Amino acid sequence: MQAIKNIVSAHSLLDGVASPADLKELSIEELNQLCAELRSELIATISETGGHLASSLGVVEITVALHKVFNTPEDRLVWDVGHQAYIHKMLTGRRNQLNTVRQLGGLSGFPKREESIYDAFGVGHASTAISAAVGMLEASHHDYPEQAERKVVAIVGDGALTSGMSFEALNHAGHLQRNLIVILNDNGMSIAQNVGALSWAFSRTITNRFSTTLRKHFKKLVARGWFPSQLYKLLDRVEETTQGFFSSAALLFNGFGFRYLGPIDGHDIHQLIKAIEHAKDQDGPVVIHAITTKGKGYKPAEEDPVKFHGVVPFERENGHFKLVTPYSRPALTEVFGQSLVELAHIDQRIVGITAAMPGGTGLEILRQEFPDKFFDVGICEEHAITFAAGLACEGMRPVCAIYSSFLQRAYDQILHDLCLQKLPVVLVLDRAGLVGSDGPTHHGVFDLSYLRSMPNMTIMAPADEHELRNMLFTALNYSQGPVALRFPRGHVIGKHELSPMQFLPIGKGQLIKHINDKIKRPRILLISIGWATQTAVKVAEILEKNNLGASIFNGRFVKPLDEKYLLKLISDHDIIVTIEDNIKDGGFGSAILEFMADNSLLQQTQVIRCGINDCFIPHGSIPELHKLAQIDATSIYHNILAALEAQATTNRLSIA
Amino acid sequence: MQAIKNIVSAHSLLDGVASPADLKELSIEELNQLCAELRSELIATISETGGHLASSLGVVEITVALHKVFNTPEDRLVWDVGHQAYIHKMLTGRRNQLNTVRQLGGLSGFPKREESIYDAFGVGHASTAISAAVGMLEASHHDYPEQAERKVVAIVGDGALTSGMSFEALNHAGHLQRNLIVILNDNGMSIAQNVGALSWAFSRTITNRFSTTLRKHFKKLVARGWFPSQLYKLLDRVEETTQGFFSSAALLFNGFGFRYLGPIDGHDIHQLIKAIEHAKDQDGPVVIHAITTKGKGYKPAEEDPVKFHGVVPFERENGHFKLVTPYSRPALTEVFGQSLVELAHIDQRIVGITAAMPGGTGLEILRQEFPDKFFDVGICEEHAITFAAGLACEGMRPVCAIYSSFLQRAYDQILHDLCLQKLPVVLVLDRAGLVGSDGPTHHGVFDLSYLRSMPNMTIMAPADEHELRNMLFTALNYSQGPVALRFPRGHVIGKHELSPMQFLPIGKGQLIKHINDKIKRPRILLISIGWATQTAVKVAEILEKNNLGASIFNGRFVKPLDEKYLLKLISDHDIIVTIEDNIKDGGFGSAILEFMADNSLLQQTQVIRCGINDCFIPHGSIPELHKLAQIDATSIYHNILAALEAQATTNRLSIA
Repeated sequence: MQAIKNIVSAHSLLDGVASPADLKELSIEELNQLCAELRSELIATISETGGHLASSLGVVEITVALHKVFNTPEDRLVWDVGHQAYIHKMLTGRRNQLNTVRQLGGLSGFPKREESIYDAFGVGHASTAISAAVGMLEASHHDYPEQAERKVVAIVGDGALTSGMSFEALNHAGHLQRNLIVILNDNGMSIAQNVGALSWAFSRTITNRFSTTLRKHFKKLVARGWFPSQLYKLLDRVEETTQGFFSSAALLFNGFGFRYLGPIDGHDIHQLIKAIEHAKDQDGPVVIHAITTKGKGYKPAEEDPVKFHGVVPFERENGHFKLVTPYSRPALTEVFGQSLVELAHIDQRIVGITAAMPGGTGLEILRQEFPDKFFDVGICEEHAITFAAGLACEGMRPVCAIYSSFLQRAYDQILHDLCLQKLPVVLVLDRAGLVGSDGPTHHGVFDLSYLRSMPNMTIMAPADEHELRNMLFTALNYSQGPVALRFPRGHVIGKHELSPMQFLPIGKGQLIKHINDKIKRPRILLISIGWATQTAVKVAEILEKNNLGASIFNGRFVKPLDEKYLLKLISDHDIIVTIEDNIKDGGFGSAILEFMADNSLLQQTQVIRCGINDCFIPHGSIPELHKLAQIDATSIYHNILAALEAQATTNRLSIA
Repeated sequence: MQAIKNIVSAHSLLDGVASPADLKELSIEELNQLCAELRSELIATISETGGHLASSLGVVEITVALHKVFNTPEDRLVWDVGHQAYIHKMLTGRRNQLNTVRQLGGLSGFPKREESIYDAFGVGHASTAISAAVGMLEASHHDYPEQAERKVVAIVGDGALTSGMSFEALNHAGHLQRNLIVILNDNGMSIAQNVGALSWAFSRTITNRFSTTLRKHFKKLVARGWFPSQLYKLLDRVEETTQGFFSSAALLFNGFGFRYLGPIDGHDIHQLIKAIEHAKDQDGPVVIHAITTKGKGYKPAEEDPVKFHGVVPFERENGHFKLVTPYSRPALTEVFGQSLVELAHIDQRIVGITAAMPGGTGLEILRQEFPDKFFDVGICEEHAITFAAGLACEGMRPVCAIYSSFLQRAYDQILHDLCLQKLPVVLVLDRAGLVGSDGPTHHGVFDLSYLRSMPNMTIMAPADEHELRNMLFTALNYSQGPVALRFPRGHVIGKHELSPMQFLPIGKGQLIKHINDKIKRPRILLISIGWATQTAVKVAEILEKNNLGASIFNGRFVKPLDEKYLLKLISDHDIIVTIEDNIKDGGFGSAILEFMADNSLLQQTQVIRCGINDCFIPHGSIPELHKLAQIDATSIYHNILAALEAQATTNRLSIA
């Protein structure tokens, strides 16, 4: 922490900025210095703590300019996705807490309404900002005349603009014709390189920088008094108009009823302030197209912005990652990606689809091996699923690899296009369960509930990397309908060498341990799903140490359940404990309960459901969160004990 | 049926068309006659049977032209939404079944893969066609070189183009640069008048019809030999290009990497064939912008296309609806709309939001009274929710009225933007439960399951129109988080006059009937939710007639449950029967089971869950479907009887 403090104290201008109000009097030169100080402190802090870096480095000037021009928090800044809002947090009273970012009890990695009045809207998933901003702006005009002067700004990356929701919002904003201001932060990236026809449309404008240079040149002349400023303004206006007329981005936004300003250099604070002030004076909606460099001002991040999107602590001097945890074991995504490549070698029909997450999902491995079997559709989960449905109609075997919480965007497409038509598309839900430092927007704890109620859906969850491989193989050899395969963010357990993939019978679980049911009461059965099976094994160990044995059944399938086997197994036990890292409401334990009710198995047994309670889990490390959510082995053990004691009391009472 | 047969037999050309292959040899003149015959037969049939009319009348020429030019079913026609595909069905072997459309066991009102090889993709919800078509086209190029000549066409209305998913697909198609053909069927409508900045963009091109007229004029000259056809072709090309350069629609599609052809007269079969053939010869993606008239060729439908979108049987001569069922009682949507207006008079913060369904949701009533408190965002459920979130952030009380099955599109926004931030937005889910003739894509039978697993969500379902009003009042006076209020497609029960609205305690149910639990065993408790409470009352009557009494508890809230009261009530009964019109998996009965498990209530009681089994329910009348799904009173009664008998057998066996 010493290192950080030293750097903080060296920041003379930044120290004077307690709130955005303190920016108002600063000159352009001072603002430039402030940006340098913000950058240096951000790099210093994140190099110690880890977090999102490259995106925030790209919007230092935009953030400063916005807080300089607007009267925040009365004016609303709505950050899309939000991992680029660290500078915003530093300027709005949270500078000294930045070193707690993404840690349990610390700052969120995203804007969050509970955290600050400057965070107008909580985010995490992409493309919500324009919609929320349209609502806020409309509200300020609606029966609140005293607030009608409120300005609302949405800051949106070009990646988030590929998502359909952004277009829905643009269309509505263009129709309403209020003075919504959209800052298009165009760095040519989402997390990875941006894709789609539109990114190409934007890049056409990016190359057109000569006009910006020209403008700069003129401005110097004006500043030096060598050119009448009135005439410059006229020329500037003409230039802006022609620019607006000929660039693809301009045409696109014009089509949606927006006035287009740009492209401007998103690291030129003077240009930014001028554009923002100009936008603020309009009557209708305006987009400011700012070209930025992701990772700006930190060479390692500029050179590899994908690597520096979200980082672990690193050496500031060279950008080398410090290995906080010795992850010598490969990530599960890697196992998935490699297994998929193995299968793609055998089955020509297999293709992989990602929604802007080639690296995060492991599909990058497929891209490298089979570029023509790889599709990155952009941040478009809805399209990803129905595109896959189209492929499946024609006999292909598409694998959509999408983080669990992001797949929520495609709920309707999964139900309406895949399940209803029984199309064999494989959904690979990475980052299922609690994901750690990204927090509640990213926890994948609803998938078992929402997928389970869909007819024709098959749901698998592997207990280890061997099952992950076998399940992928099984899913791709199952043609009766869609299959969801969900696993957590994490690494292989690595007890055994990976062996060739095998087909697992659909809807069959695995008995890991069977206690001798003749001897001891109560007979406890742990029924777990997916990675929670690892927890179940630990729970059984703790129980055993405490003189309480337990059988363990790895469910493997949430749907269909292993009904025949469960019928027998449950009848042999007194206490059924279900273990999952999904929300309890409607989850795996709920499925077991329904099965037991339908088969009159409830009267002889007690059921304890262990899973996530009906609340949102904050951010923190995964082990911390498991404890907090009481789905770690110790909590589950105590949960079981408490239930046993309660029952013993009830029994004593009923005897008495 | 006699009337229909007569008309069918009068259609000499149509009788010769057994499959699309028979169109190939027909001249333009004959095709025009065929269109007239198709129209006349469609009107005759639908006037007898009811169904979607105006949309299909608008695409007669487009449908004929597509089947004439393309080699269907080998080439794929993907209809968006699909209620405009009746003519397609008539041309592809289903003409004689058209009088069964939307009836149990009859033709679906939408394309359906199971129904015909000509139905390349099943639809119902808007905006999936381009995505599916992109997938199909990509598949044809992928390791299936022998199929690479396959053409894929998506036929999309301008309404469906407001939905974000369409843009996601356009962006991807523009990136892939295959010869995808999109027919933009621009009638300026979705179901109601189309909205948003884009519709304005399209209308700018629509007004530019003079060029089309000019072109027609030239064509006449060419036809008469007064003008060299080569020169005409050149001029035509130039005109097409300039048209493409200057129209907003063209600029928009160009931005997505599409070649733009149009606008053309969507009722001019010659122009259509020419444009389609031209599009087919391109290398990259092409959009053909066809201007059509919804309801074309039937005056009452042209004059009121909203009324003739989906119709009950009508008098062909004048378009007067025959009253199949005497719906003298007002629709529930009407009660909702009027109640909302009452409340909007009192509370200035209330606004209503619809996603292109002002009439269907009852919000039209709000629009008429308070146009400035009404927002139609287009077919944009995702934006609707986050727009509402933005409004709620600023203290407004938005009410989003969206059909249950369409709200599925906004699953993520409900969870991520409303629930996580506890924003007081009221979701009014009309058409919950089985909706009847629209079938599986439109049944709203998943909402209780998917909403129930969301933290901070409150879910209410009224048992009658009085509760509907009280729940709306309650929802708008609850500020701790989002509220979902779901009710079925249907009409008021109308036993009592509507009285002033009252606040209902959150999470409190209503005991409708309590049997004398001292006398008779088994003591049965029916726990119902929403309109299923009407069924529960009938079940209790049947049970009583058969010498089995039952208590009835109207749950009112799915979340939170009335835990305190249920604890006592359930303990007083032996058999618990849950009744809902939602899918059983994760539904209301599942919530009751979870509650009982968590409170150790399962050992003394048996639970019978009545609801929709794990499958998709087809189309048909609502009473037919309730019977089919076994959620009508008689089926539930027999279900209870069977369970009682099974238990008796078990008891006898265990005694023996």
